[in-house]
Amino acid sequence: MPLTRDQLADIEAARASPRPTLRAVSPGMEARLYEPVPVLDHGFVRVVDYMGDDAAIVQAARVSYGAGTKKARDDSGLIRYLMRHRHSTPFEMCEIKLHVKLPLFVARQWIRHRTANVNEYSARYSILDREFYVPAPEHLAAQSAVNNQGRGAALEGAEAARVLQTLKADAARAYDHYEAMLGQDGQQGLARELARMNLPANIYTQWYWKVDLHNLFHFLALRADAHAQYEIRVYAEAIRGMVRDWVPAAHAAFEDYRMGGTNLSAKGVEALKRRLAGEAVTRETSGMSPGEWREFEEVFGDAH
Amino acid sequence: MPLTRDQLADIEAARASPRPTLRAVSPGMEARLYEPVPVLDHGFVRVVDYMGDDAAIVQAARVSYGAGTKKARDDSGLIRYLMRHRHSTPFEMCEIKLHVKLPLFVARQWIRHRTANVNEYSARYSILDREFYVPAPEHLAAQSAVNNQGRGAALEGAEAARVLQTLKADAARAYDHYEAMLGQDGQQGLARELARMNLPANIYTQWYWKVDLHNLFHFLALRADAHAQYEIRVYAEAIRGMVRDWVPAAHAAFEDYRMGGTNLSAKGVEALKRRLAGEAVTRETSGMSPGEWREFEEVFGDAH
Amino acid sequence: MPLTRDQLADIEAARASPRPTLRAVSPGMEARLYEPVPVLDHGFVRVVDYMGDDAAIVQAARVSYGAGTKKARDDSGLIRYLMRHRHSTPFEMCEIKLHVKLPLFVARQWIRHRTANVNEYSARYSILDREFYVPAPEHLAAQSAVNNQGRGAALEGAEAARVLQTLKADAARAYDHYEAMLGQDGQQGLARELARMNLPANIYTQWYWKVDLHNLFHFLALRADAHAQYEIRVYAEAIRGMVRDWVPAAHAAFEDYRMGGTNLSAKGVEALKRRLAGEAVTRETSGMSPGEWREFEEVFGDAH
Amino acid sequence: MPLTRDQLADIEAARASPRPTLRAVSPGMEARLYEPVPVLDHGFVRVVDYMGDDAAIVQAARVSYGAGTKKARDDSGLIRYLMRHRHSTPFEMCEIKLHVKLPLFVARQWIRHRTANVNEYSARYSILDREFYVPAPEHLAAQSAVNNQGRGAALEGAEAARVLQTLKADAARAYDHYEAMLGQDGQQGLARELARMNLPANIYTQWYWKVDLHNLFHFLALRADAHAQYEIRVYAEAIRGMVRDWVPAAHAAFEDYRMGGTNLSAKGVEALKRRLAGEAVTRETSGMSPGEWREFEEVFGDAH
Repeated sequence: MPLTRDQLADIEAARASPRPTLRAVSPGMEARLYEPVPVLDHGFVRVVDYMGDDAAIVQAARVSYGAGTKKARDDSGLIRYLMRHRHSTPFEMCEIKLHVKLPLFVARQWIRHRTANVNEYSARYSILDREFYVPAPEHLAAQSAVNNQGRGAALEGAEAARVLQTLKADAARAYDHYEAMLGQDGQQGLARELARMNLPANIYTQWYWKVDLHNLFHFLALRADAHAQYEIRVYAEAIRGMVRDWVPAAHAAFEDYRMGGTNLSAKGVEALKRRLAGEAVTRETSGMSPGEWREFEEVFGDAH
Repeated sequence: MPLTRDQLADIEAARASPRPTLRAVSPGMEARLYEPVPVLDHGFVRVVDYMGDDAAIVQAARVSYGAGTKKARDDSGLIRYLMRHRHSTPFEMCEIKLHVKLPLFVARQWIRHRTANVNEYSARYSILDREFYVPAPEHLAAQSAVNNQGRGAALEGAEAARVLQTLKADAARAYDHYEAMLGQDGQQGLARELARMNLPANIYTQWYWKVDLHNLFHFLALRADAHAQYEIRVYAEAIRGMVRDWVPAAHAAFEDYRMGGTNLSAKGVEALKRRLAGEAVTRETSGMSPGEWREFEEVFGDAH
Repeated sequence: MPLTRDQLADIEAARASPRPTLRAVSPGMEARLYEPVPVLDHGFVRVVDYMGDDAAIVQAARVSYGAGTKKARDDSGLIRYLMRHRHSTPFEMCEIKLHVKLPLFVARQWIRHRTANVNEYSARYSILDREFYVPAPEHLAAQSAVNNQGRGAALEGAEAARVLQTLKADAARAYDHYEAMLGQDGQQGLARELARMNLPANIYTQWYWKVDLHNLFHFLALRADAHAQYEIRVYAEAIRGMVRDWVPAAHAAFEDYRMGGTNLSAKGVEALKRRLAGEAVTRETSGMSPGEWREFEEVFGDAH
Repeated sequence: MPLTRDQLADIEAARASPRPTLRAVSPGMEARLYEPVPVLDHGFVRVVDYMGDDAAIVQAARVSYGAGTKKARDDSGLIRYLMRHRHSTPFEMCEIKLHVKLPLFVARQWIRHRTANVNEYSARYSILDREFYVPAPEHLAAQSAVNNQGRGAALEGAEAARVLQTLKADAARAYDHYEAMLGQDGQQGLARELARMNLPANIYTQWYWKVDLHNLFHFLALRADAHAQYEIRVYAEAIRGMVRDWVPAAHAAFEDYRMGGTNLSAKGVEALKRRLAGEAVTRETSGMSPGEWREFEEVFGDAH
């Protein structure tokens, strides 16, 4: 269970006491507030606060573009227009604050998104819990043979068992030694800021992460992508569900233009125009590299 | 009147319909939501949304420092500790969104604070209103004789009248010509994005400005300072009042450690220690420059 | 002439004294250092410093991806791969510092790019020069009839003459009054920080602007775009020429993937696939809005 | 030895071939370029590029403040003025790029400084080396009894030996298992992005880190501080030496105003003024909390 009994009681208490506000309220988000969405074996993500809704995006855009925009199109059409033309500032007017429990090696990828606010549990100040990520058998994947930065099929049989056994045993031993080094019974006890260095990268940490909607979309576009590592992608997928309930119109535009769309190079545009004109285009005549051509064909199929 | 009748009706409507929320609520901010605080002759600043309160700062700090902090000190003491030790991340967990109407030359200073989100009224897209800042007589100041970047006494008599007359007449003429160039009666009409170049820097613009509390404190420390230009300082002062009602404990710590405090150099610390030990310290024996010594004496008085 | 005699002498002196360095050197940039590229009627942009070259991008990427990348592809192929997959961090390893003289209303658009460092000439501290942007006749454009945020054809005949006359006369008068208000002959003299408010938005200002290559590409993608206002686009075009000489491989990848490429929505991908399969797709069956369809046809032509 | 033979040969080659440049050159930095400064047991930090020098800071300030500043004070006085008044933008005009090899738990603290550019060695893409940080005996410290986030005295005798033995054995075993899981002899071989999760936080990683001088000073103020964890402080100290050779005047101002200076609260100012006036001030009459008073007395001594 990712949350302690105390934490669950806190959540229940927090959800039991609605208070009046004059601010914009997103019903979809209110229904989710504080409730953890389980991710991986011990992790979770939950919304602890938010600011704004679809209407706040529209309102900010109308400040920029003036009253003239009012008749031009309805809210959802305006949001699609903003997304299509990369007018990102109105999306920055919405903000979300998440509480996330996640393995340390996932946290290391996540933190590379710099335009966000973070408060992480401090292992200098406090003692980490004995919780480690161990992949489910179906996610215990072999190294990809074609992509240095990817996975192949799941490990099989004895090898899978061996790996799981290693991960569990090493984590348990490391944590036993962490506790032993910290202990002050009959010894001085190693400083926390030093003892933590013995812990492996699959230990769980947690943080508050606050980000605006534009930067969150950027995070989701990269981390919910099929090329992202599975262990961060599941967090991105969980957050994507929250965003859908929070700002349905902005989420729909994001799905259409970012997640479901694609970028074409000048060479790609040219190749498509030639194919539309009935010409057979090969990799060689397209001017693309083999990798680029492969990605192009993944989207548009081959010419035959 | 800085707001139109329609805008006032919108505000009344927005304030008439509280809705339930499970989020943190700041009563001091709810009382202020949407209400414009007048600034200068036609400007205003008003809160249109906020996230978090004093408890949110404490909550974020406790995520970082763990349960051990719970007993150590009460919330207000913890907030003071965070402010004193420049642990800025918990303050970043609060966010505020302001609607500001301000002269263009003030907007130019303001925008230099980069860690914020902005949607400004677009003079490419829409037509600016005929509203210009003209200083009140007591703020029509002469150039400072000692500080290149400062003001002296208010202008007097005929000179003051001449300047006011010039500012008003030039603004009125510039706006008449702006309208004449835009007009499409019997002519093509100049593009808005070009016509605006004729307007002086005291014309009013407006924007939505969203910022976290840590960066807002940095803004206030610089712009509510006595050395800031009066015309931006009045906005900073208005916002300072909002912050006091929003997060009283954080505001009190900010006032004590930033606005009311001072930075000492190594030379300044040394000079104070020598004076505390009974020694008379002069500028020459302090090693400070004349400017530095003057600022030092402004805070601590001279040695005699 | 945009530069004073003194400034030209400084440039000549700076260019006369090469010094040895062990850092990466870009020959194309050395040839350009300090030399102003004229833009608009009194503006310019010039490189005053730079860090890194194409090899620095590759070197940073190889730190990330390890030795394995060495054989995989040559430098230019790796740079194309990074650009295609939006691996932006290696491009952030190059930095450029520009000195720009530009009209104030252009500076206001430019500054919205927040991830950059800026030192602007201070009109609080110093007195601005008597230099104003007045469009060349062919750029004195009418408001667009179809796009609120765009231009139509150039103004003609009497109207053009009238507008030019207005812009020149208003600027001259505003500057005369600026000087008169500042003057201290027989009067106190208005503070500089106040007098500047009388100056129109076509007055020239100047700044040092420092940015990394990734953020510069983002700036160029938005500001060298056909939809950008002409007066900022000419600066972007001038900088684009510098980037081509500085980092030729990165520039070529940028031109192919960003400037010459396009983004497709999920609906756009679907429409193309159906057309490639021989189906006639109309706006109605595509699910796109009229605006989106128009932009789609601009790139791929209509179905017939 | 922190660097491989190949890397040393690369450094020698890079240092053997000075090339002419027209850019600002810092002799102190040229002498250091590429040379690693050893830190901890296997780490290092070295400069791989830089932009600007003391004169570049002055030049940027003079763009802002105009020609009037030229006579006012010499370069070093102007730099001190900028530092004292927190005019940070001229310092942002200098940039440095470092190559750092550091334990993963140090990297996790370091990365919290967001305004910087980073390319880190990817353990998804490549295999990490068998190098772990093990503290020297004098740095194997006990948990502080008074500060949750600090260290006490070094561990003694048997306990120290036990801890060292644990750290070494666990790291060695974890790395053996990492290799075993990756191996493809007679098995599929676990994906690199998964296998890395077994490695402890004292394994070494490396990155390119690029930052402007203002943000570097902020990093140094926090991380070269006595309260910073020893393992990051030694990196900060090494960088501080580089900055001294790079921009001597800016470094001197930083040392005087930041590292050697102190911040006083309003209560602190008041207490000092009363003591200067001959009054005995106690913690109770100062209004300070016990922690605040202790820090105050650490700087200014007690009243007696």
